[in-house]
Amino acid sequence: MTAGDRNDVHPAWLPPEAFRALGARRTLVTGDGPLVETVYREVAQACASYGGGVRRSGSDDGGDPVDLVLALTSAGPLPAAAEEVAAGRRQRAGTLGAEGFLLARHCDVTVVLAEQPAGLLYGLFQVVRLGESAFGAGHPPRSHRPATRLRMLDHWDNVDVHPVMGQVERGYAGGSIFWRDGVRRDLSRVRDYGRLLAAVGVNAVSVNNVNVHATEARLLTDRLDDVAAIADVLRPYGIRVHLSVTFAAPVLLGGLPTADPLDERVRTWWAGTTRRVYERIPDFGGYVVKADSEGQPGPFSYGRSHADGANLLADALAPFSGVVHWRAFVYNHRQDWRDRTTDRARAAFDHFAPLDGRFRDNVILQVKHGPMDFQPREPVSPVIAAMPATRLAVEFQVTQEYTGQQRHVCYLGPWWSEVLRFGPWGDGGPTVAAVATGARDGGSPGGGLVAVSNVGDDPYWTGHPLAQANLYAFGRLAWDPGLDPVAVLDEWIDLTFPPPAAASATATAGSGPSETGGAGDHDLVRRTLHEIMDYSWRSYERYTAPLGVGFMVRPGTHYGPDVDGYEYTPWGTYHFADRDGVGVDRTRATGTGFTGQYPPPWSEVYESLDRCPDELLLFFHHVPYGHVLRSGTTVIQHIYDTHFAGVTEVAAIRRRWERLAALLDPALHARVAERLDEQLRCAEEWRDQVNTYFFRKSGVPDVHGRRIH
Amino acid sequence: MTAGDRNDVHPAWLPPEAFRALGARRTLVTGDGPLVETVYREVAQACASYGGGVRRSGSDDGGDPVDLVLALTSAGPLPAAAEEVAAGRRQRAGTLGAEGFLLARHCDVTVVLAEQPAGLLYGLFQVVRLGESAFGAGHPPRSHRPATRLRMLDHWDNVDVHPVMGQVERGYAGGSIFWRDGVRRDLSRVRDYGRLLAAVGVNAVSVNNVNVHATEARLLTDRLDDVAAIADVLRPYGIRVHLSVTFAAPVLLGGLPTADPLDERVRTWWAGTTRRVYERIPDFGGYVVKADSEGQPGPFSYGRSHADGANLLADALAPFSGVVHWRAFVYNHRQDWRDRTTDRARAAFDHFAPLDGRFRDNVILQVKHGPMDFQPREPVSPVIAAMPATRLAVEFQVTQEYTGQQRHVCYLGPWWSEVLRFGPWGDGGPTVAAVATGARDGGSPGGGLVAVSNVGDDPYWTGHPLAQANLYAFGRLAWDPGLDPVAVLDEWIDLTFPPPAAASATATAGSGPSETGGAGDHDLVRRTLHEIMDYSWRSYERYTAPLGVGFMVRPGTHYGPDVDGYEYTPWGTYHFADRDGVGVDRTRATGTGFTGQYPPPWSEVYESLDRCPDELLLFFHHVPYGHVLRSGTTVIQHIYDTHFAGVTEVAAIRRRWERLAALLDPALHARVAERLDEQLRCAEEWRDQVNTYFFRKSGVPDVHGRRIH
Repeated sequence: MTAGDRNDVHPAWLPPEAFRALGARRTLVTGDGPLVETVYREVAQACASYGGGVRRSGSDDGGDPVDLVLALTSAGPLPAAAEEVAAGRRQRAGTLGAEGFLLARHCDVTVVLAEQPAGLLYGLFQVVRLGESAFGAGHPPRSHRPATRLRMLDHWDNVDVHPVMGQVERGYAGGSIFWRDGVRRDLSRVRDYGRLLAAVGVNAVSVNNVNVHATEARLLTDRLDDVAAIADVLRPYGIRVHLSVTFAAPVLLGGLPTADPLDERVRTWWAGTTRRVYERIPDFGGYVVKADSEGQPGPFSYGRSHADGANLLADALAPFSGVVHWRAFVYNHRQDWRDRTTDRARAAFDHFAPLDGRFRDNVILQVKHGPMDFQPREPVSPVIAAMPATRLAVEFQVTQEYTGQQRHVCYLGPWWSEVLRFGPWGDGGPTVAAVATGARDGGSPGGGLVAVSNVGDDPYWTGHPLAQANLYAFGRLAWDPGLDPVAVLDEWIDLTFPPPAAASATATAGSGPSETGGAGDHDLVRRTLHEIMDYSWRSYERYTAPLGVGFMVRPGTHYGPDVDGYEYTPWGTYHFADRDGVGVDRTRATGTGFTGQYPPPWSEVYESLDRCPDELLLFFHHVPYGHVLRSGTTVIQHIYDTHFAGVTEVAAIRRRWERLAALLDPALHARVAERLDEQLRCAEEWRDQVNTYFFRKSGVPDVHGRRIH
Repeated sequence: MTAGDRNDVHPAWLPPEAFRALGARRTLVTGDGPLVETVYREVAQACASYGGGVRRSGSDDGGDPVDLVLALTSAGPLPAAAEEVAAGRRQRAGTLGAEGFLLARHCDVTVVLAEQPAGLLYGLFQVVRLGESAFGAGHPPRSHRPATRLRMLDHWDNVDVHPVMGQVERGYAGGSIFWRDGVRRDLSRVRDYGRLLAAVGVNAVSVNNVNVHATEARLLTDRLDDVAAIADVLRPYGIRVHLSVTFAAPVLLGGLPTADPLDERVRTWWAGTTRRVYERIPDFGGYVVKADSEGQPGPFSYGRSHADGANLLADALAPFSGVVHWRAFVYNHRQDWRDRTTDRARAAFDHFAPLDGRFRDNVILQVKHGPMDFQPREPVSPVIAAMPATRLAVEFQVTQEYTGQQRHVCYLGPWWSEVLRFGPWGDGGPTVAAVATGARDGGSPGGGLVAVSNVGDDPYWTGHPLAQANLYAFGRLAWDPGLDPVAVLDEWIDLTFPPPAAASATATAGSGPSETGGAGDHDLVRRTLHEIMDYSWRSYERYTAPLGVGFMVRPGTHYGPDVDGYEYTPWGTYHFADRDGVGVDRTRATGTGFTGQYPPPWSEVYESLDRCPDELLLFFHHVPYGHVLRSGTTVIQHIYDTHFAGVTEVAAIRRRWERLAALLDPALHARVAERLDEQLRCAEEWRDQVNTYFFRKSGVPDVHGRRIH
């Protein structure tokens, strides 16, 4: 990428204007080391644009007034205001930890204290997020610590373009920012990416596809320099690099006759190979493994368990404090569609729950949030409640494989928030977030939160400019799963489309020709984006597969409707619609028994046709079209109603976007407008195909007499 | 391809043993020129293997006895027996024409006479086909002339491998025999192919895909040498080369601002370009054009008709006696599935019938035999009866796109024969064959027969070894549409799996360890292959889409079942199944009116629910599942019955093939066995998906209580 190209890259949530408040102040930075250098450089760059100043800590600091102190507590004498804040903190219990910080406003000085450099970096970006208000009243000392140690993005990027899956598997934003004929020579976008991730608190990135092909396998050995180059660029932003490896590596790369996890030669090979990785990349994060899944090799080939497999890699990583993310996405992808007893939803639990307690401490079992595969609606995976003696990471999908592929606006924050707040043992009990963060078990480190990234080399990073919000929201929710996703969206809007300052000479995205002035314009932008995005996931749910049944997508691409597309395939994803009814009977009484994988109360709630939540009804039950939902409407009428409503909502979104035509960058506005056109077309296709399909099957007319083909 | 590779290429219907009878005789060849050289070389090669002898005509021929004379009537004095045959012929009316020959047995000499060298070549292969019987009794003088001048194979081969469609579009037999990084350096397989085609009477080959991509477009201009190289190799077998061209060539290759057929610059460009083609390839056949079809450019872009477009190229070709094959496969491939008034079946007639009489004499309108696209069952295209003032070629598909893709045994001879014998104006009237050959119009040259080839660089040529029979049958039926397809298959069997001669020292494909001797073994081979192949098309029809409705295939690949796969797509291929019934209403009374494109009696027969043939019922009518067919069974029960029966038939085929394990070449036997396994698996998948689909929709149980899922 040339410098010229870089100028075309959208700044996402870190445009220069986001640093206006900071850049106009006088800031003191204390401490040493690469991350403190990053902090200093960020502040200096902001000051260069907005007229403020920045100093490093020194012996003569006492005299000059400052507005902001960013200080490592270990870094020697502090200005008076900061020292008073620090003293106050020392009187209270608790540490800030490796990544935490304390923020306070005291005597007209905003103070950020951290024990470790990473905390200072995150504190800086908190100040950025707060903008002017960071320098206003109402900041009593408050500690900020991430809920979980590991906040990770997985990239399903291939080094070589895959003939079927392309360079980025399930990627909808162009090629890989990491790879082009090996590692990219110009990694400036990776640096920018690291900066964006640091600003939302992500601290780990896996740099290659979990489906590890031939070239990518060698990143572990003779192509390790490529990984090191990426690690060097991400390190100043507090981000560790992880690598997806193939379980067959000892055979493929080591020339061994086996990859049996209990074979001594295999253990020796992994130990030596891993040592060499750490010699090259001392802060390497660890391995990600998709084993015995969708054709990938794994321990089953050797009659070993997934605990055997994961522990093999964990033992190799342990001396260096590395972790292995072992994916629980194991199921029979060659199922006979005729066989109604096999249930893919059961697979992860059946495979992994019996292994609870048998994994090493540095194994993280990476569990998709639902039992299937990132549908717009699924129940929470029962695995999350089933393995108290295992570190579990919950996996989300920021890339919109099943949620519109970054052609549809689909803000996923509300969906993830719903999952994170869900209580696997009932409302009021520990949440999914508490399991992932380890909070449920007190001192446990937890497995953290992981998501598949939606970023590529597209100028807007994510194809659809508004899809940036999903990446932003994942990072923020991983840092604090208790955040309100609407408030998170508000943060994102204010950073990405900053309000113009009257005094600012810099042209900004938010400045338009309106006569009412910037603040009013910005309110309109913010309000409109909320109207467009807050409920966009719900709209998407309405116009796609109904009532949690899922998977009515085009096979292969997973874009657009195909009601029967997966119905007679080996993939285990069926809806069983016939002329009388639809849905998957997963009850213990008459179905696959999947409901029995949940603890109470959900094992009872989901089992019960009366108590099962409407939105999951067809995930758990096969019902007649005339079945009356808890909402009071029949299943068939609900299908019609939601599909008409979903399209109406998209049409409204499309109209609302036009309001912003004069207020946003024309190129960005045009890009979104074009995608909204496609979203509306596609939503109509969903509506008509789903409604026609069910009308043809059921013969039940729409009570409102609307057009069904 | 190295010599070593060539040894692995199956000889198809020209194994050395096929020349045994000829090669053991004394033959005299008269005449000169490249095709006579080919005849001489063939005989000489046979004699080298089997001990016979061959001489060229000369002044001292009179004395030595001969068994076979292959003589050009223009080539001077003949041996006595041949001269007597020739004299007898001269007394009768009619000429043999450019490709005809006369065959007789007179005074213990078999005589083949031809007026032109091509006739001699075809006469030679008739002798090969006859084998020993060519030299026995019962050969009164008989003239053989091809029914039509043009007997053509189209290759949908790309020079560059297409990212989606591969090198050979809809090819199931490996890569292209013509192309690899441009034209292949070693064209020995093209020569072998030409020889095989000559043996069945094919005399024209189009060497590139009708979807003309960027590289392939340039075959017309700067890559013309590649085409010439192929022409050089095929010329000795009487085969002319044709080229698929893009209608946009004047823009793409000529740098003109338009390809408007009425623009003088465009006409000049085509004239000059075509002249250069003939300078390089004097016997070049002509152009093949797919215009305004599935995204290809065409005259519609300029508001011109297809007559304008075709005549443009015809005028350029006329000075050199070239022809343009203009495909009538024009339809809206972006149809809205919701729109039931648009009917793809109507499209070719609607586009072309009004243009009858407006095409130049050297335009051949190439019409697919059915109105849709090579389904295993369709009515005959109404275009065939609609354009008496136009030269029509009827197009078949030897490559098995919709008929099992050379993984299923599906001998298509009976299907093509049924089409060729069909009377568009009613039984007893002129046939489809009579239209294509021009026989209907007396002196008309006709458009001929064209088929899409099934050949690639696979060692067996066609992937499935038994699919060779389809290529063979197409050639033979193009030569003589009146042939019995079962008799044609018999020819193919005897040539391809020749009976071993007791005296032969050569190991042959037919020689096995059987103690009963070669003749009995051969009878078993012949009988078994008939049992496997004679009804294989009918079996295929039974286990796939029912009653002529078509297109229940996987979108894209077109392999295997997907009942709703095309139901909600833009391709115009729907079955409209709902809970009450299925089928496409194409009547004039209540449907799309397609039946009105036929002349009587078919316009009435197809319109009538009572008179419409069962096998086409759902092509023409939407009926309830309980509708009683002419066969006496209901539609739904017919679906169940045929799908169970079709699989049973495939299972029987699979068992029968095992009989031949010891009698055939093990590699060939294994190749077929493996494909039969896949055919059986796939047929079961068809049966279960189709039956389940219709059971779920109709709710009607199978009266025999068989398992439906």
